[in-house]
Amino acid sequence: MSTTLPLQFDVIGHVRTSVPDAEIARRRRELVALVEVLPRYADGLTGIEAYSHLIVLFWMDRAGPPERLRCHPRGDATVPEVGVFAARGRNHPNPIGLAVVELVARAENRLTVRRLDAYDGTPVIDIKPYDHYDRVTDPRVPEWFRQRALSGRSGVR
Amino acid sequence: MSTTLPLQFDVIGHVRTSVPDAEIARRRRELVALVEVLPRYADGLTGIEAYSHLIVLFWMDRAGPPERLRCHPRGDATVPEVGVFAARGRNHPNPIGLAVVELVARAENRLTVRRLDAYDGTPVIDIKPYDHYDRVTDPRVPEWFRQRALSGRSGVR
Repeated sequence: MSTTLPLQFDVIGHVRTSVPDAEIARRRRELVALVEVLPRYADGLTGIEAYSHLIVLFWMDRAGPPERLRCHPRGDATVPEVGVFAARGRNHPNPIGLAVVELVARAENRLTVRRLDAYDGTPVIDIKPYDHYDRVTDPRVPEWFRQRALSGRSGVR
Repeated sequence: MSTTLPLQFDVIGHVRTSVPDAEIARRRRELVALVEVLPRYADGLTGIEAYSHLIVLFWMDRAGPPERLRCHPRGDATVPEVGVFAARGRNHPNPIGLAVVELVARAENRLTVRRLDAYDGTPVIDIKPYDHYDRVTDPRVPEWFRQRALSGRSGVR
């Protein structure tokens, strides 16, 4: 198990949305986007409609290489700095995005989903069905998150 | 945004567990493992203790290349075949494992976590804090999942 060679993976599809990059975070709660799976992988979606929610993993190809291992969560300087693994920003060593989305509809290789906070054209690298192992009833989060996210302010991450 | 070149990412750490590979799935609910982050990334864990749960992404390096795009969920032939993206198996085009785990303790670059169903030595590629956007109160799942997982049988995936 080498830790020196980089691992490689393939693109399985792309995000399609008409929302401009700059508005994605702010409009997160209302986003409806398309995940267009490459035709050669379309058969892998068979039966996915049995799930109401999915986990979409994507490659944040517009994130530059991270310069530091700490950040202000959501870029908000009023929130104390933490390590990048303690935040959901775009500056992780591997820029893998993860979104829990609602599956609205499937048409062959295209999934219509809600709340996918990824830019138009973003490469998708995996899709997983969301199940009860992914559900934490009452997760503990930092106070700043609780105050902002739970008060209904969008784009909290 | 190229879709032809494979994407590359780095290993950020490894899973350490004394549980043999063959017992990981069955003992999932009771697993306690260590995520050992490489020292050069340790600072990225700062403040992660503020979260009770994490999402760990790992590279299933012992999964062979998938031969087909359909599978029986959890390898159970009594469950009808679905596409690989409609199941949580090891046979996705990119063998990325995803586990929602409970963070028990942190000691510098080592996280003690519960319910990480990864083999000993598995490369870790990302760690994210679990928050309320990841929580779906009542996800819809297939009937076979509901019957088995919710009845308390372990290793359901």
